[in-house]
Amino acid sequence: MSVIAELSIFPLDKGVSLSPYVARAVSIVQQSGLSHDFGPMGTCIEGEWDEVMQVVSSCFKDLAQDCSRISMSLKVDYVQDRTGRLQSKIASVQEKLT
Amino acid sequence: MSVIAELSIFPLDKGVSLSPYVARAVSIVQQSGLSHDFGPMGTCIEGEWDEVMQVVSSCFKDLAQDCSRISMSLKVDYVQDRTGRLQSKIASVQEKLT
Amino acid sequence: MSVIAELSIFPLDKGVSLSPYVARAVSIVQQSGLSHDFGPMGTCIEGEWDEVMQVVSSCFKDLAQDCSRISMSLKVDYVQDRTGRLQSKIASVQEKLT
Amino acid sequence: MSVIAELSIFPLDKGVSLSPYVARAVSIVQQSGLSHDFGPMGTCIEGEWDEVMQVVSSCFKDLAQDCSRISMSLKVDYVQDRTGRLQSKIASVQEKLT
Repeated sequence: MSVIAELSIFPLDKGVSLSPYVARAVSIVQQSGLSHDFGPMGTCIEGEWDEVMQVVSSCFKDLAQDCSRISMSLKVDYVQDRTGRLQSKIASVQEKLT
Repeated sequence: MSVIAELSIFPLDKGVSLSPYVARAVSIVQQSGLSHDFGPMGTCIEGEWDEVMQVVSSCFKDLAQDCSRISMSLKVDYVQDRTGRLQSKIASVQEKLT
Repeated sequence: MSVIAELSIFPLDKGVSLSPYVARAVSIVQQSGLSHDFGPMGTCIEGEWDEVMQVVSSCFKDLAQDCSRISMSLKVDYVQDRTGRLQSKIASVQEKLT
Repeated sequence: MSVIAELSIFPLDKGVSLSPYVARAVSIVQQSGLSHDFGPMGTCIEGEWDEVMQVVSSCFKDLAQDCSRISMSLKVDYVQDRTGRLQSKIASVQEKLT
């Protein structure tokens, strides 16, 4: 059950400079070895449901160590029997734009 | 680490009548025994992070049995050392409205 | 084009007590006269697309007067030729639960 | 009031091949002339609040012409007096990763 999950996570008790906290989450995603795409509003992670949710949990638990309020949003897209969609979803739209 | 998570999940391959699938997810949330609030755009679930994520996984895996494409969104709010927030968050806003 | 939009909006530069700011947004929704449902993770607003987006803009612009960083999320569900869905969506799921 | 808004929009009544509809929305974003970043789970648009909301409305109204059910999600990040954040947000996190 391969999914793409877009993760956005940040603390609410650390002022407006969020990049140190976002970097901690992105670093955890990178170390997972899963395919990912880091964007301006979130990080897309592709993998088996359980693998991806494990990474999401690790990101949350890491921030919860020193953040007293956290906002997280996760958007998941699942298509049966399909992988490599971080690239193919974009390619599929782009060929219809030209 | 108690959180509130708002879950919205539905298939994309079953036409526009989504309520049978939403009902399956809501039923799983009900059977979990966790505090929850079922609304027009999602179901809010309150509990420990691991408990809540377990329920979210159960909902996803249930729908993935017979749905070939699924969209899910999850929005999480965590406040350290606080529980009972399904009620208290609403009360806190309402007392400022009157 | 009647829609339900779930609005969640809060500042990131005002610490962790968000209810005064949420109350300002909820108050603007109330004054709009549109059908709405205030929940633990957001406020669902039902109305014509342009009406609803006008209210969303008013909420954003109100908070932007004194907040230097704002996070907003909006989730919209549109069904052609259907209104009164704040109630009917819930009823439709509930009849499948019993 | 410059914002980044991540837009995700798709029909629920057209089966699981969504790229033709996503391409229509992305095309409207491109024609707006606003800075944007097209990703696997949504398109980030940067501009003044009113400009961005105008583009979002155009995307919705375009799809509503022939789609009977539409799901849309919008995630907005506003920072006072800051522009060019589609690039600077990513750069700010990346310099903390190295």
